[in-house]
Amino acid sequence: MSTYVHDFLDGNRDAADLLGGKGANLAEMTRLGLPVPPGFTITTDACRVYLKTGAAPVELMREVEDHLRGVEARMDRRLGDPGHPLLLSVRSGGRFSMPGMMDTVLDIGLNDRTVEGLATISGDARFAWDSYRRLIQMFGHTVFDIPGAAFDEVFTAAGAEDLDADALRGVVAAYKEIFHRHTGREFPQAPHEQVHLAVLAVFRSWNSERARVYRRQEHIPDDLGTAVNVMAMVFGNRGPDSGTGVAFTRDPATGRRGAYGDYLPNAQGEDVVAGVRNTVPLEALKDLQPACYEQLAANMDALEEHYRDLCDIEFTIERGRLWMLQTRVGKRTPEAAFVIAAQLCDEGLIDLDEALRRVSGAQLAHLMFPAFDPAATPEPLATGVAASPGAAVGAIVFDSAAAAAATEPVILVRRETNPDDLPGMIAAVGVLTGRGGKTSHAAVVARGMGRPCVCGAEDLDIDPDAGTLTAHGTVLHTGDVISIDGTTGEIYPGRVPVRPSALMRHLGEATGESDDPVIAAVDRLLAHADRVARLGVHANADTPEDAALARRLRATGVGLCRTEHMFLGERRPLIERLILAGDDDAEREAALAALLPLQRADFAGILAAMDGLPVTIRLLDPPLHEFLPALDELSARVARAEALGTDPGRDALLLAAVRRLHEQNPMLGLRGVRLGLVVPGLYAMQVEAIARAAAACRRAGGDPRPEIMVPLVGDVRELAAVRREAEAVIARVEGAPAILLGTMIEVPRAALLAGEIAEQARFFSFGTNDLTQMGWGFSRDDVEGAFFGRYLELGVFTTSPFETIDERGIGRLIRIAVDEGRRSRPDLVVGVCGEHGGDPASVRFFHDAGLDHVSCSPYRVPIARLEAGRAVVLGVAAGSDSR
Amino acid sequence: MSTYVHDFLDGNRDAADLLGGKGANLAEMTRLGLPVPPGFTITTDACRVYLKTGAAPVELMREVEDHLRGVEARMDRRLGDPGHPLLLSVRSGGRFSMPGMMDTVLDIGLNDRTVEGLATISGDARFAWDSYRRLIQMFGHTVFDIPGAAFDEVFTAAGAEDLDADALRGVVAAYKEIFHRHTGREFPQAPHEQVHLAVLAVFRSWNSERARVYRRQEHIPDDLGTAVNVMAMVFGNRGPDSGTGVAFTRDPATGRRGAYGDYLPNAQGEDVVAGVRNTVPLEALKDLQPACYEQLAANMDALEEHYRDLCDIEFTIERGRLWMLQTRVGKRTPEAAFVIAAQLCDEGLIDLDEALRRVSGAQLAHLMFPAFDPAATPEPLATGVAASPGAAVGAIVFDSAAAAAATEPVILVRRETNPDDLPGMIAAVGVLTGRGGKTSHAAVVARGMGRPCVCGAEDLDIDPDAGTLTAHGTVLHTGDVISIDGTTGEIYPGRVPVRPSALMRHLGEATGESDDPVIAAVDRLLAHADRVARLGVHANADTPEDAALARRLRATGVGLCRTEHMFLGERRPLIERLILAGDDDAEREAALAALLPLQRADFAGILAAMDGLPVTIRLLDPPLHEFLPALDELSARVARAEALGTDPGRDALLLAAVRRLHEQNPMLGLRGVRLGLVVPGLYAMQVEAIARAAAACRRAGGDPRPEIMVPLVGDVRELAAVRREAEAVIARVEGAPAILLGTMIEVPRAALLAGEIAEQARFFSFGTNDLTQMGWGFSRDDVEGAFFGRYLELGVFTTSPFETIDERGIGRLIRIAVDEGRRSRPDLVVGVCGEHGGDPASVRFFHDAGLDHVSCSPYRVPIARLEAGRAVVLGVAAGSDSR
Repeated sequence: MSTYVHDFLDGNRDAADLLGGKGANLAEMTRLGLPVPPGFTITTDACRVYLKTGAAPVELMREVEDHLRGVEARMDRRLGDPGHPLLLSVRSGGRFSMPGMMDTVLDIGLNDRTVEGLATISGDARFAWDSYRRLIQMFGHTVFDIPGAAFDEVFTAAGAEDLDADALRGVVAAYKEIFHRHTGREFPQAPHEQVHLAVLAVFRSWNSERARVYRRQEHIPDDLGTAVNVMAMVFGNRGPDSGTGVAFTRDPATGRRGAYGDYLPNAQGEDVVAGVRNTVPLEALKDLQPACYEQLAANMDALEEHYRDLCDIEFTIERGRLWMLQTRVGKRTPEAAFVIAAQLCDEGLIDLDEALRRVSGAQLAHLMFPAFDPAATPEPLATGVAASPGAAVGAIVFDSAAAAAATEPVILVRRETNPDDLPGMIAAVGVLTGRGGKTSHAAVVARGMGRPCVCGAEDLDIDPDAGTLTAHGTVLHTGDVISIDGTTGEIYPGRVPVRPSALMRHLGEATGESDDPVIAAVDRLLAHADRVARLGVHANADTPEDAALARRLRATGVGLCRTEHMFLGERRPLIERLILAGDDDAEREAALAALLPLQRADFAGILAAMDGLPVTIRLLDPPLHEFLPALDELSARVARAEALGTDPGRDALLLAAVRRLHEQNPMLGLRGVRLGLVVPGLYAMQVEAIARAAAACRRAGGDPRPEIMVPLVGDVRELAAVRREAEAVIARVEGAPAILLGTMIEVPRAALLAGEIAEQARFFSFGTNDLTQMGWGFSRDDVEGAFFGRYLELGVFTTSPFETIDERGIGRLIRIAVDEGRRSRPDLVVGVCGEHGGDPASVRFFHDAGLDHVSCSPYRVPIARLEAGRAVVLGVAAGSDSR
Repeated sequence: MSTYVHDFLDGNRDAADLLGGKGANLAEMTRLGLPVPPGFTITTDACRVYLKTGAAPVELMREVEDHLRGVEARMDRRLGDPGHPLLLSVRSGGRFSMPGMMDTVLDIGLNDRTVEGLATISGDARFAWDSYRRLIQMFGHTVFDIPGAAFDEVFTAAGAEDLDADALRGVVAAYKEIFHRHTGREFPQAPHEQVHLAVLAVFRSWNSERARVYRRQEHIPDDLGTAVNVMAMVFGNRGPDSGTGVAFTRDPATGRRGAYGDYLPNAQGEDVVAGVRNTVPLEALKDLQPACYEQLAANMDALEEHYRDLCDIEFTIERGRLWMLQTRVGKRTPEAAFVIAAQLCDEGLIDLDEALRRVSGAQLAHLMFPAFDPAATPEPLATGVAASPGAAVGAIVFDSAAAAAATEPVILVRRETNPDDLPGMIAAVGVLTGRGGKTSHAAVVARGMGRPCVCGAEDLDIDPDAGTLTAHGTVLHTGDVISIDGTTGEIYPGRVPVRPSALMRHLGEATGESDDPVIAAVDRLLAHADRVARLGVHANADTPEDAALARRLRATGVGLCRTEHMFLGERRPLIERLILAGDDDAEREAALAALLPLQRADFAGILAAMDGLPVTIRLLDPPLHEFLPALDELSARVARAEALGTDPGRDALLLAAVRRLHEQNPMLGLRGVRLGLVVPGLYAMQVEAIARAAAACRRAGGDPRPEIMVPLVGDVRELAAVRREAEAVIARVEGAPAILLGTMIEVPRAALLAGEIAEQARFFSFGTNDLTQMGWGFSRDDVEGAFFGRYLELGVFTTSPFETIDERGIGRLIRIAVDEGRRSRPDLVVGVCGEHGGDPASVRFFHDAGLDHVSCSPYRVPIARLEAGRAVVLGVAAGSDSR
């Protein structure tokens, strides 16, 4: 029977599409016999009808009434009955967790009559009136958009936490006034109307601004809708034998087994999540309420066994009785993710494929983040809760808008965060709050995003209006740099030097087995990824040192060796000479002849370090003026000299050259293969250096495998011209091995004509950075500061297309090129050497698009290896993210 | 029976693919009973076998021998028979005319014995030895690549033209020496070997450098191959009753009916083509050889009737007997093309559809070229032959390489041109030669390319080595500017002011019917084009004046009104104020408020001029810093002031703003829709101005049809955001008409995601300039000078992709966008407003791709109208050029 309402007794965890994650898990816990308050779930179908038509399905409220009667029967209380009032919570709960993003209304069922009844049966008038106060505020805010501040003012003025029942009765009267003033109507006294309006408000909250921003950030589709869970209220604020808490079956920070969490005595759940009062560790419950603790621990074991994963739990104890209010597979730090996945394998609960599915390249990247150098770390300014690991250094900003607009790295500093701070948290490199624990909004969201976060730093006096942060007499201002360590909770003034991660050191030095459980787990899962992966992982390396490092990190070759980096430093005068030569053939040839032995030595070193593995060398790519000083700088220098009557000397010569080479849009100018075709002898010199280096390697008994890559090709005839010249040069070098010639695909036209280009190319390598710049029509250097913040806000991007490949736009060009290139040359080797090659989310796309390898910076090789393995075990189509 | 050789008696003009144009037409003339020397054609099939395998088909030479016996029989002479020697010409002849691009060998059959026989039977020893001399030189050059100069030196040293038979006998001996020295073998005495080697040399000449360059320029496929025509020699150099000439059935310059051409008494055909001696007009033949003239005139009438078009003819008179050596449909000036097409309609030979096929937008463009202003024209320096009409002004260059490398307009000045000059002629704006007539190489090639050309200017002393051009005592040097008039043949020192064409004046002023036959013919064919065309032709217009002109030129709307042009001039301080406002909301709003009434007035004027027709207004597109002075200029000014201790004043303020807005690649920066989304209120102000202007027009009784176009969209969400804002603004303006909102498609990604973007767009307009820049990854401003010359040389381009749409690359993006946009919104209106919209070759592509309209500058509207009609009557797939 199609129905919009399912009792917790009916569902199970596989029905999350329909019941949302929270509803499905409540049903699952009910099925397992755990103590869940009676209740039911309104399906996401009902929400979708509402979002589409603007009205709930006609049969919905009838079904809700039917199920309410069931809850009343099981609780032996009735909605609106002053003698035995039933109170309800109404909570959102979508398919994917969106912590704090949508709305909740608690204490539904209270009105002027039932509040008296509640006071009587609970024997606690203060509790009853405080609950009624909470209902009016939450209902007013959620259903009628009354600003929370309007209520907070009255509450604070009255004395807040320490009010007695009579005072709270006054607050309720004032709240009802506020409600009437803002809505033009009285606070609804009919409990069924309260339920009805709250359900619709939860539906609407799916499309709130903050929920939409969060979904974009987390790639959650906009059309899922939310389910609504209606549950009998239980109270953690009924005195010292009551309380509420959040618990994890393993430590979400380290993966350590055992119960872990926060408990807040005599409080409601929202007090914990909002972080407005500080919690005690879960262990404290063992002394406070031993029986409840034991029952909770047993329930947690049952859940972990059942879910075969770390679970997090919300619970409430009402007068010594434990109630399970929520569970789900818990978020965790990257360290914990690896450790837990390995442990679960050891425990026989999952196999290695499943373990690999449960970790991600993004998590591994996080472990490879640098941390502060302990030797150079000053006295901390203060210490807070280590809420999301990693080290971050940035300028202080006190509001989310400033963070989103900043062009320099910033640390968002807030008393506490709320969902409105999301854009700022996305933009900041780290988050620091003065209040709240590890389960506060700031902590949960920052961990999800991998942003370092320190919260609950109570020693800090944070004053956003004054733009100051004060700690123990030290005053810092907006724009001052601070450093925060999300792994230790420490906060430092100024810029603290950073050191590489232990894992990185382990991998980079290839030190063998490690006792560190995190490193051991990573090693184990990386080894499994290597076993199953189809994609090879090359590294981008321009020096023998980088190549050697890449090899230790198990790169399968060098996918991009940039020759322009060999023209810098002390060799700059040589390239200046080449540029100043202009049309003077003899001078140009002399400059090239001087560069040849240097390039040959460069290549020989890299080929030796990568002996037996392919080394793809890109011929010179950047415009020549990049090797000269900037035009405005030279103009000013020469103008100054002229004004003062002094001789501008070489500056005048350089200025003339820079003017001659000046381009309005150097990205779209004389660079890449164009340079090779226009500057006689340049590419020939580089090809000769490669061939000679390879010949020397072979004579020394090595197995050099150089490949030559031509940049910025847009037409097959460009490539053919370079190839003719290169083949002639190579043929003249005695003892040179066979050298494959291929091309970058980084100009959109090259992707569109890949079939033809493949006739002249043995391999393709996508330059996804240029392809993104030209395909979107914006250059990374120019636009990130100028409008990316605004575009994230508008949802044009969910992440920068320079970070994660834009699958539908740029990705379509890649798929066209792979398909048509291979059709024309079935043994075409296809890779990617743009920065996306090391981006976890992009690696999966490249696997799916059929590439042979990715190439990335050496430090990202392990991340790409992990994702290359995951792409296989996930076995999913590109774009469908595992969440 | 499949065969590689066809006698002239067997073929006809429809077999041009197999026999080449020349061979097919020789067969056709033979079939018509005209006096063609006996001969046969070796097919292009045979050439293709040779080009592919490096050897002629085995049966070829046997077939050639068979046919030679037929020729011998018909001529009653035999190859190598000293008593009755048969001489042959061996000439190339492909499917498409490639004048002078491939090789020819004449006088084959002469050797040490037959030369004596020829002397005896002709009674003219001088003629016989001169022919032998010619054979050795031509054969040596063509078959063995011996430089012509090697022979010329000897010939000049001996006294050249005035040599008697004995002296020529000495020259022959010296030539044989040269031949031996260069080839290591004796000049072949066996006539059959001469034939064999000459045929293979013609095959090879298909792939000569100059032939390949020409084919790229003319878009002739490389795999066609050439046919070879072997024909009995007839001689125009047998005395005063002999001669050779070129004739046209109508004047190829004006279209005037009647025989027209050049005649050169006592000469061989190559003397005319090379322009080494000056010709007499064809009319002179009437007195010199009345019978021949009459026969020629009758033949020409027959040919024109038969071909229903202007024919050109090569003929030779040998001792009073007329021989027809070649005919083809003749090249003509653009004026003549229109006049002839209209005349042939009047004569009932063709219909209007066919007439439209016979003219082109490129020819019409030529007629709309400006000419020199007669009032301001100085005394000419000299006068030559008016060989290709139009006016050109440029710097003198004396060699082809310099012309190809030039970045400024140049005039290529040569004593005479040869096929090696082709790259220089492509690059130059005009061509000037000292020798040769209207049928010289320079004239034929320049007319084909539409380059103004003056040739045979005998008063000029052209000295390329000295880099000087001297006339009547005036000495001009390399780099000096001259002006040439290809319509009158006049040459002027310096820069002569230019006036618009009479046709342009007629069309632009819409003056009604004209007596001028060219203008009348254009009017008639344009009217027919308008009747049959499916593509509409809009104009790009930024002012009411341009819009009114476009309307007179029969534009069907304004396809692009650029609002940035309204921010210049005296309004610049307002936009500077907007920029300097930065984040100061009040100041920015004040600046926008000041711009609003000005923009409203701009739009009102254009809407009034285009009343009843669509006016597509593009919201602000260029980066804001384009409205400020250049960074290097400001840097230098401020540095100078600082060095001198003076106050830089406003410059310092502007410098700060320019630095803030500075972009490495402004083309890929903060512009277009990005600007609209980042600068609050900017687009809203423009939309409001449009809506208010339209409302005012309607109140005044008009029918304004504004459309709003958003530039640089890459993602549907950008467009959706602008649309939401625009619709809200329009809704607030009382009396505004419905205003369609659409988008430019100019970012490659937009083309790839057009299906989605069409959901938010009522129309698309391709910005092919940006699409080309981003698709190819080069900016027009930066690269044209830097490497386009080199790319034309390499054949990467045949024409600049900014001039004619790159159909396979950028065109593919266009086809994707049209198809997927229409799939998503079937009534989507699709146009193009990039500069390609007025390019004749591109219009056909846009028609074929299914666009609704093109938009181009007002002056190109008639060209686009003509091509829009031709696209229908040609009924061809895009890309297959009519030649």
